[in-house]
Amino acid sequence: MATAEARAKELENHHNDCLVQLSNPNIATMKEDVLYHFSLSTSTHNFPAMFGDVKFVCVGGSPSRMNSFINYVAVELGLGRPGDEYPNICAGTDRYAMYKVGPVLSVSHGMGIPSIAIMLHELIKLLYHARCSNVTIIRIGTSGGIGLEPGSVVITRQAVDACFKAEFEQLVLGKRVVRSTDLDEQLVQELLQCSVDLSEFTTVVGNTMCTLDFYEGQGRLDGALCSYTEKDKQAYLRAAHAAGIRNIEMESSVFAAMCSMCGLRAAVVCVTLLDRLQGDQISSPHEVLVEYQQRPQRLVGYFIKKSLRQP
Amino acid sequence: MATAEARAKELENHHNDCLVQLSNPNIATMKEDVLYHFSLSTSTHNFPAMFGDVKFVCVGGSPSRMNSFINYVAVELGLGRPGDEYPNICAGTDRYAMYKVGPVLSVSHGMGIPSIAIMLHELIKLLYHARCSNVTIIRIGTSGGIGLEPGSVVITRQAVDACFKAEFEQLVLGKRVVRSTDLDEQLVQELLQCSVDLSEFTTVVGNTMCTLDFYEGQGRLDGALCSYTEKDKQAYLRAAHAAGIRNIEMESSVFAAMCSMCGLRAAVVCVTLLDRLQGDQISSPHEVLVEYQQRPQRLVGYFIKKSLRQP
Repeated sequence: MATAEARAKELENHHNDCLVQLSNPNIATMKEDVLYHFSLSTSTHNFPAMFGDVKFVCVGGSPSRMNSFINYVAVELGLGRPGDEYPNICAGTDRYAMYKVGPVLSVSHGMGIPSIAIMLHELIKLLYHARCSNVTIIRIGTSGGIGLEPGSVVITRQAVDACFKAEFEQLVLGKRVVRSTDLDEQLVQELLQCSVDLSEFTTVVGNTMCTLDFYEGQGRLDGALCSYTEKDKQAYLRAAHAAGIRNIEMESSVFAAMCSMCGLRAAVVCVTLLDRLQGDQISSPHEVLVEYQQRPQRLVGYFIKKSLRQP
Repeated sequence: MATAEARAKELENHHNDCLVQLSNPNIATMKEDVLYHFSLSTSTHNFPAMFGDVKFVCVGGSPSRMNSFINYVAVELGLGRPGDEYPNICAGTDRYAMYKVGPVLSVSHGMGIPSIAIMLHELIKLLYHARCSNVTIIRIGTSGGIGLEPGSVVITRQAVDACFKAEFEQLVLGKRVVRSTDLDEQLVQELLQCSVDLSEFTTVVGNTMCTLDFYEGQGRLDGALCSYTEKDKQAYLRAAHAAGIRNIEMESSVFAAMCSMCGLRAAVVCVTLLDRLQGDQISSPHEVLVEYQQRPQRLVGYFIKKSLRQP
């Protein structure tokens, strides 16, 4: 325990240059900032005291998975015991759940680009108000694989859109704005090295396609709507594979774009629940899926432990 | 109790012509259909027995709000008592929550187009497998108003995009598909009449803008990112108002498009939590916001009660 905390302190003292930045001059002039979807406010909560020591933020879709993660990482870092309970910092709302242990914050983000974007706006403001520095943020999620054994873990090289472009497009005041979806290359290599150290499951580096829909948007044949054939689907997925895409999910592009604009070192680590070349339905037994979902947690938990140990 | 149930039976017998339709020929040929995000499957659950009598589906972002709604509507219809508990039918997952009482199903959908789209694909398949007929579906949500007193309720005439067009655009196999966002005009008038009957709060009919982002996508000045001025924002919101837009939320366009394609009579009823011409932050006291959020529930609860009473 003492070691991890001391190391976190050290990081804090050495990297004050890498403060979390906002790309909005208005926030500094506001008397109060209500983070509505977290049910937190700068006038009722002391952000520097609550969050000032945060160095690692892990985010994922499901609130219960993010609760499991904080338990897991607490034990890994020697900051807690199995079965310890951690209060939900966002207990005043059911939009998101947030847990903290030592330098690690674990936050749920729901499903899809809009849902994670709301969370990231408020999370990045939270880290700014708390004067956090040198923060690494990692999305630990689930995805559909392309040409990979189910249970494989993909570390994202580039987040790409449904046309395979490394771009995130958004409408701002009704006008199209395009942002790059760059992720930290060094962090990809560090995470890959961790998977080699662990050698518990297959891990690959590849591009990740981020879509706005789970059914038609990912070429599934089993939604309420479908107007194409198995052949069309296979052609699309094989073209994606040829473009270096190894998995498909629904949050990575806006995550990469926003983190990059605010100076956060960011990575995406997702397990694949099925191989989309073989089918569309997620029908593996519950226990198998639960074990798959623990893999990104184990990889990222190990990465955090290793980062806190090394100078 | 007897009256409401008898009326539901009557509706069932009279309207077998209005079965819920899928726009996908593949589903009829599948041996099993796993509704993954509901943790339900046709091979483990008897859908006709569980859901065959559903006539009204109400959906909203927050799981706890949809739980409150089922309690409220159960009491209104004489099918339950205050404080009764209703099991979460989707207890096997934390992606969505689902509750049922008599002919009413209440389902949460999270935030944003992708999140509600996943839910709607699986919900529409659920209603199809259950052989439901003559179903009305209503989104009861929260929104930001434009030029309305906070707490006003907006019944959506048309769902429009961030360019004020009544269209929902989607990428299918990487290609742009545009769908109309028509809603049922008669249902709008019936709901408006209910608000007149109730006369508890201001209710208007207007267009609803549906965006992919809560901060930049809605012209807010208080996100982590913002590259425009108060003047730009005001010009955008005033142009929206001139185009008949009275509120902004994040789900109505895909909701309208999908329900219309599958033959579901659909409406959107949202309360406005603030007037966006006056500000961006949602900073009203918690109790005030809770009361606002009950207004769409009261209106729709009354509508259901009235529908079940009338022949």
